[in-house]
Amino acid sequence: VGPGDDAAVLRAPDGRYVVTTDTMVHGPDFRFAWSTPRDLGWKAAATNLADVAAMGATPTALVVALVAPVDTHVAVLEGIADGLREALAELAPGCGVVGGDLSVSETLTIAVTAFGDLGGRHPVLRSGARVGDVVAVSGSLGLAARGLSLLFERAIDEAGAPDAVRAIELRPEFSVALDAQLAPHPPIADGVAAALAGATAMLDVSDGLVLDARRIAAASGVAIDLQSASVATDGVPLHEVLTGGEDHALLATFPPGAALPGGFRAIGSVLAGAGVTVDGRPLDERGGWDPYEDWNGARG
Amino acid sequence: VGPGDDAAVLRAPDGRYVVTTDTMVHGPDFRFAWSTPRDLGWKAAATNLADVAAMGATPTALVVALVAPVDTHVAVLEGIADGLREALAELAPGCGVVGGDLSVSETLTIAVTAFGDLGGRHPVLRSGARVGDVVAVSGSLGLAARGLSLLFERAIDEAGAPDAVRAIELRPEFSVALDAQLAPHPPIADGVAAALAGATAMLDVSDGLVLDARRIAAASGVAIDLQSASVATDGVPLHEVLTGGEDHALLATFPPGAALPGGFRAIGSVLAGAGVTVDGRPLDERGGWDPYEDWNGARG
Repeated sequence: VGPGDDAAVLRAPDGRYVVTTDTMVHGPDFRFAWSTPRDLGWKAAATNLADVAAMGATPTALVVALVAPVDTHVAVLEGIADGLREALAELAPGCGVVGGDLSVSETLTIAVTAFGDLGGRHPVLRSGARVGDVVAVSGSLGLAARGLSLLFERAIDEAGAPDAVRAIELRPEFSVALDAQLAPHPPIADGVAAALAGATAMLDVSDGLVLDARRIAAASGVAIDLQSASVATDGVPLHEVLTGGEDHALLATFPPGAALPGGFRAIGSVLAGAGVTVDGRPLDERGGWDPYEDWNGARG
Repeated sequence: VGPGDDAAVLRAPDGRYVVTTDTMVHGPDFRFAWSTPRDLGWKAAATNLADVAAMGATPTALVVALVAPVDTHVAVLEGIADGLREALAELAPGCGVVGGDLSVSETLTIAVTAFGDLGGRHPVLRSGARVGDVVAVSGSLGLAARGLSLLFERAIDEAGAPDAVRAIELRPEFSVALDAQLAPHPPIADGVAAALAGATAMLDVSDGLVLDARRIAAASGVAIDLQSASVATDGVPLHEVLTGGEDHALLATFPPGAALPGGFRAIGSVLAGAGVTVDGRPLDERGGWDPYEDWNGARG
């Protein structure tokens, strides 16, 4: 049963289903001066798919609640729908939009709820890392933050407000970082691959590598040491690699000696203790992108 | 697995699950001058529960995406959470909030996605009504519209803007209609009861009795005749009974001779043909509350 009745009916072959929800609001989470409607739809899908993947599940469906100003051009709505559809086709083939709701308000907002199937496996939680495990990551680190920094530095007008023309001009030259920020490609299939390879803990890096590694360490009752040489990323300062948010890479721990699947590469190790160190040294940065603390309404 | 990891994992005992989503936006869908935060949470839960019930399913879980202005008082957020929790406890015991997302924007918006379990039964769709079936309804008709009319007539200030003090003063005197509008009590358990009693079609009356009856008639390829004497509601003009939205009553069709379950009462019959008549006479009213056409920003 698809859209048109009061609700959709979805399959849950193994008797359970994974659910996550995430909202993007014009202003704190994106700006149409920088994101195309297609970018917005793509990112709304990709970030929710990454949360499903981080449980070790295969994404199966999305529902979308879109709130838009009453004078929104239909081409904007079509662009958002295109971005959702294209992200699903590329990142999670077989996953579709099964329901939605369109409302009117002054601020464009998109709330996506995503579903996944565990295929009979246990979910991979944040709490399963064990001393001696290998810490590994699949996906980019710090590129999304680099892209956002570029936009705030170079895609603004004389008054400091977001400038659409400059953003368009900037995109070809810095396509890797700007795509990472505006239309990210998280390694969705690597979520299931990690589960099959025996990952003991996993999450998606939405708020920065150090902050999200701390979450695994705290939930698992262990310490994590990261190797700066292993996380180094071309063209991204180490600080942004360690603390930049929104990449939606998958961070996981694997038993010692496990073959790392897909795009995973080793970046550290699980130790006895608490907290996160880099090359053995403690860090006190908070890291990550927090819309409550960082959003400046005047800048857009 | 509950909140705290990247996603929740829910049970789906019969291998399928029902999903629906609905959004309420400050301005077109509610106003804090009239709704308390608890009312808002209650209504956001109740309207989504009604969509699950209208499939013949038992509500099992909600996820909530809340977008609020950065200066929203914590008591408002607590009130919304209380309303969600109280509505679930009263209307759908056993159903809980399993996930959420809080974002910041200028306009308070709440998007709820609700899940349900069919208990091994077929979903009750809009398309199953057959000639000779009895048309029945459970829940109130027109009361929510009466409540909204009262608010627009009597809970406004001299300039015509919503007035919180007048709304509070009005509520005790017109509690039935105002509760129907601000904190509705749809007959959630009657959704499963209807399915068990053999309902052939069902939906929740969100946009007005005539408009929603037309949806069943169109989806099923039949005509529906309603009896005005059977739908008459104390203190509500017949026009509002027929066209008023937001009551979230359950409208269903049952085979001839079926014992009507729970709060269902017969209000009409399914005939050969197309469209909806009342006492055999055709209607052309659109009916229902449409935020796109009816919302006037200046009135709030």
